[in-house]
Amino acid sequence: MTESAAPAGRPVSLPGLPTHVTVYEVGPRDGLQNESVTVSTTVKAELIGRLLAAGLPIVEATSFVHPRWVPQLADAEALLESLAAAGVETAHLPVLVPNERGLDRALDRGCRHIAIFGSATETFARRNLNCGVEEQFAMFAPVVARAREAGCTVRAYVSMAFGDPWEGEVPLAQAVLVGQRLLELGAGQLSVGDTIGVATAGQVARLIEGFDAAGVRREQLAMHFHDTYGQALSNALTALREGITTFDASAGGLGGCPYARSATGNLATEDLLYLLHGLGIETGVDLAAVAATTRWLESPLPRPTPSRVARALLAESPAECPI
Amino acid sequence: MTESAAPAGRPVSLPGLPTHVTVYEVGPRDGLQNESVTVSTTVKAELIGRLLAAGLPIVEATSFVHPRWVPQLADAEALLESLAAAGVETAHLPVLVPNERGLDRALDRGCRHIAIFGSATETFARRNLNCGVEEQFAMFAPVVARAREAGCTVRAYVSMAFGDPWEGEVPLAQAVLVGQRLLELGAGQLSVGDTIGVATAGQVARLIEGFDAAGVRREQLAMHFHDTYGQALSNALTALREGITTFDASAGGLGGCPYARSATGNLATEDLLYLLHGLGIETGVDLAAVAATTRWLESPLPRPTPSRVARALLAESPAECPI
Repeated sequence: MTESAAPAGRPVSLPGLPTHVTVYEVGPRDGLQNESVTVSTTVKAELIGRLLAAGLPIVEATSFVHPRWVPQLADAEALLESLAAAGVETAHLPVLVPNERGLDRALDRGCRHIAIFGSATETFARRNLNCGVEEQFAMFAPVVARAREAGCTVRAYVSMAFGDPWEGEVPLAQAVLVGQRLLELGAGQLSVGDTIGVATAGQVARLIEGFDAAGVRREQLAMHFHDTYGQALSNALTALREGITTFDASAGGLGGCPYARSATGNLATEDLLYLLHGLGIETGVDLAAVAATTRWLESPLPRPTPSRVARALLAESPAECPI
Repeated sequence: MTESAAPAGRPVSLPGLPTHVTVYEVGPRDGLQNESVTVSTTVKAELIGRLLAAGLPIVEATSFVHPRWVPQLADAEALLESLAAAGVETAHLPVLVPNERGLDRALDRGCRHIAIFGSATETFARRNLNCGVEEQFAMFAPVVARAREAGCTVRAYVSMAFGDPWEGEVPLAQAVLVGQRLLELGAGQLSVGDTIGVATAGQVARLIEGFDAAGVRREQLAMHFHDTYGQALSNALTALREGITTFDASAGGLGGCPYARSATGNLATEDLLYLLHGLGIETGVDLAAVAATTRWLESPLPRPTPSRVARALLAESPAECPI
């Protein structure tokens, strides 16, 4: 008798869940940005092509940040050219822009979906944006205005929305206010980030309700969880039960904060898909194809994937469990 | 500026959650049983002593299974003697007994809390118990009856309650029926196990409701999750929201099914505690002390812990996250 394929069983829903969820793939940008091994433009293009082929509806492709700050993504233009040459409609791929110069580069390449990276805390704003929380709005205002004028959609990350390595717990009102201000600038969606992965379920529900109380609708929110303390998926489930329908994830758990307290990073796309599909929620994504992409990436980017689903699906010699 | 200690933030609850949860530590038995490196009696005794000192209210100590089947636990008598010599009240520690011979050994050692290991599926029963699902009740009946006569409490594991490597999805009615029969024999608590870690949240809620519909109260249930597909903690959260107040876990995620599709095994005690404490639920357990125990165990049992909380708390050189 041999072991059959992993028996996930028929999907069973929970009360009040949506029928469809949008998975926003951040691996090629947020993931690679935090990997120390340099990945070639060719590999990046193939990674994005594979993720799109797996059915991921949104793949954030790269960042038009200055190469000095993120050398890994210095090839943004070349990457988009490579993708376009391969027949990918690159205008559909969101790109991060840190400032007006980055926006210029993105618009020059025909990008139509822009993301900006805001901070909910003063310390992280100063360290990552080189300005304070309040000053970031002035910095982002022309970026968002010009992107909108050019017909772009704008997503705004609200990073460190729960906890900050220097400031500790982030007051709810502070995270909500930063999100509101970014929406007022013209952003259409907020990606609310537990950037260091410290949040637990009750804090997630409370913050979503806090946004709601401030007039920010659940449809305007995406949730972005990191798995530093193993809470990413239970936090995603909590947000799902709170009515959130867009979730960020990275294939194979790519990236994260490798220099932070744990090697684990973003919520793995595979682990999220396993949960969603088990709940009978449609995503349009082929889980096996994402896991196969993670395996393929192990050659150009040697690292054990933190995704438990990827590891389980890709184990080559499934044998029986002794008890 | 240096990074401060991990900022978990103030606890925030969710509606309807209990104020207290019992964490049933299975590392020394279920965990070590599935580890390939042989651990000495001295190390086992120290492990149990450390877990008790960390505040874990219940630590399943060992199994009185025949040494041929589980060589790792062949020292059950010697372990309990060693613990008693160190001042541990060993009668408080549950032990697994597979049959009447095992019960005799446990009673000889003064054990007062017995666990039996039932199967929800025919194939696993035949492979693990060497009898069918129906025959297991006849086998366990005298074990439970005699244990009760001797004044012992009896916990019954319902293994493979969601999925089975050979049979696939397990019908809900089958898992519930096996649990009911084990309760009828005289067991006081069921530990409902996702032994291969394939369940998702909706299936967990449905099974708990299935037990309830069959007259099995939530107070009679413990849930036992494995993390093969990364779902253990979100399944635990779901069970918690369904009213379950006892959860099995193993320190550092010790054990599991190392020969199954993934190296990950039991839900890690640290990851569960992080969630529970974040929700403001009392456990009486010192999370840092459990993580320190996991670190200490890395010397006699060299393996990277799958617990993300343990890895995060124990990271020696926390540096700042680049973005």
